[in-house]
Amino acid sequence: MRTTYAIGVDVGGTRIATGLVERKGRMIKEARALTPRDSGPFGIVDAIIDLISEVSSGVHPSEIAGIGMGLPAQIDFLRQTVEFCTNLPLAGVDMRSLTMSRVRYPVTIDNDGNCAGIGESRFGAAKGVRDFIMLTLGTGVGGALFLSGEPYRGSRGLAAEVGHMVVQLDGPPCPCGGKGHIESFLGRPALSVAGQEAAQSFRGRAIREEAGGDAERVTAEHVVNAALKGDEVAREILIEAGAVLGEALVGLVNLLNPKLIVVGGGIGESCGFLVDRAAEVIDEHALAGRRDVRVIQAELGNDAGVLGAAALAFDEHDSREGLHR
Amino acid sequence: MRTTYAIGVDVGGTRIATGLVERKGRMIKEARALTPRDSGPFGIVDAIIDLISEVSSGVHPSEIAGIGMGLPAQIDFLRQTVEFCTNLPLAGVDMRSLTMSRVRYPVTIDNDGNCAGIGESRFGAAKGVRDFIMLTLGTGVGGALFLSGEPYRGSRGLAAEVGHMVVQLDGPPCPCGGKGHIESFLGRPALSVAGQEAAQSFRGRAIREEAGGDAERVTAEHVVNAALKGDEVAREILIEAGAVLGEALVGLVNLLNPKLIVVGGGIGESCGFLVDRAAEVIDEHALAGRRDVRVIQAELGNDAGVLGAAALAFDEHDSREGLHR
Repeated sequence: MRTTYAIGVDVGGTRIATGLVERKGRMIKEARALTPRDSGPFGIVDAIIDLISEVSSGVHPSEIAGIGMGLPAQIDFLRQTVEFCTNLPLAGVDMRSLTMSRVRYPVTIDNDGNCAGIGESRFGAAKGVRDFIMLTLGTGVGGALFLSGEPYRGSRGLAAEVGHMVVQLDGPPCPCGGKGHIESFLGRPALSVAGQEAAQSFRGRAIREEAGGDAERVTAEHVVNAALKGDEVAREILIEAGAVLGEALVGLVNLLNPKLIVVGGGIGESCGFLVDRAAEVIDEHALAGRRDVRVIQAELGNDAGVLGAAALAFDEHDSREGLHR
Repeated sequence: MRTTYAIGVDVGGTRIATGLVERKGRMIKEARALTPRDSGPFGIVDAIIDLISEVSSGVHPSEIAGIGMGLPAQIDFLRQTVEFCTNLPLAGVDMRSLTMSRVRYPVTIDNDGNCAGIGESRFGAAKGVRDFIMLTLGTGVGGALFLSGEPYRGSRGLAAEVGHMVVQLDGPPCPCGGKGHIESFLGRPALSVAGQEAAQSFRGRAIREEAGGDAERVTAEHVVNAALKGDEVAREILIEAGAVLGEALVGLVNLLNPKLIVVGGGIGESCGFLVDRAAEVIDEHALAGRRDVRVIQAELGNDAGVLGAAALAFDEHDSREGLHR
């Protein structure tokens, strides 16, 4: 049977978003809540169930293909298990069964980066592109690899940690414990430190003002805001980050020869000039034949995860029913 | 019809190797020649045709599935065209048609790194592994990506340039024109320079002796030979290169979550201690869950390319005939 809706769930470190989504990606209804952080995995599942009830109320269950759920965790997709989870207490928790025991729909879980990538691939910036890399610049640097038309998950479902490629031997520390990773230069903590350093001198006064005059309280958002208001010092910090991103992407372009790179996440979506700088570096430094890769901003913003999770639920439903998309 | 043999051709910058190969990878007959460098593409095709005649003489054409050919070039596999070729005058040359016009077998061309990877995957160190990375340490640093059981070629067939990933922002120059690529640290030119520097002091006397006492003539091979004879200074150079390789592979392991990494090429196959050092670094620095990746030396040596090319010819034959491997 060809169902009309799927429910997408995007579980983040700070909030959970859900949506009732049509096959063509239209979000009919949405609901959000803060992620409960002190009541363990059951508290999180409770919150998810409440949101699912909210978006599915009034719809007949037979019209719903299933639930897709993106988690900020490393997922073994084939076994549908949560392997690691840094920000929430979900490692080893059987989120799929826990959720399915409380609703009447099948549940499929995936990494949140993969869900955002599926969203952009089906309904957004990467529509119709078989080989692309999705990068999200937020607190961390995440991503997804779409290779030959499918998310590539690696031998244990742990692939696509784009932020943890080494671009500087013995470089600055990364929150993961490594050194010189992409995230060491482009994660929010790294941009905050750069902003704090600039804010301590007269040159960085516009950044300091964003933080209420206190250089030590400068965050990545303050740097972005100052840059968007035209402050040159803040722009320089982000353009320099864009150049580092570009060099990292030169390596990825040489390795994977993608057709497209989509940059999303809060920082990626607000800073077009950072993305443009990365594109320039690729155009200058990538090996011949690969420079026709396009580098663009993501289109779906915060909805990418919910829409992609819903698409995953449709796919799973259709493959169970022997339908082709 | 299920054929018995395929012909594998491995065209290198200095020599061409061909073999008559059985389905299970046994090489029945082989023939080699120096690559003609002064007579253009037709001279190269002439040499290939001579070698093919030699290895196929006495075999009935109906027993031969076809010819697979690895070229040291960037190949658009779907279109079967040679896009770029640095070492031989083959860019834009229709090697497939040129060869097919002179023999009675179908011809399939691919990048030489992919052929070596297919060889190791079908008959060598990576037998039965769906997700692995092949790396060849030779004059340059090449490789192949096997993802979900197939060579991954990228949007235009130009993927898998493992040697041209950036590991050091603003690092030492790479022969390709880039900076701080893996090949900048691990290609023969880089190892030669490191050897020459060491050979200029008393510490490096064992390396200097390998080059007949002339520090300026030291090559990567002299460093390898001194190390294999137990010279500590030469070993240090190569172990340091292994550590850089390891950091680069940390990034690749985080990105692709492979099950296995196979290191081949002249330097990779002779220096087990270099490969071991890379494996140690991965074990220390890769993200959790990915450290069970095995890092091993290639098994097929120079035969990998011919065997892989033959396997490709069998695959193409079988898919034309509707057979499954």
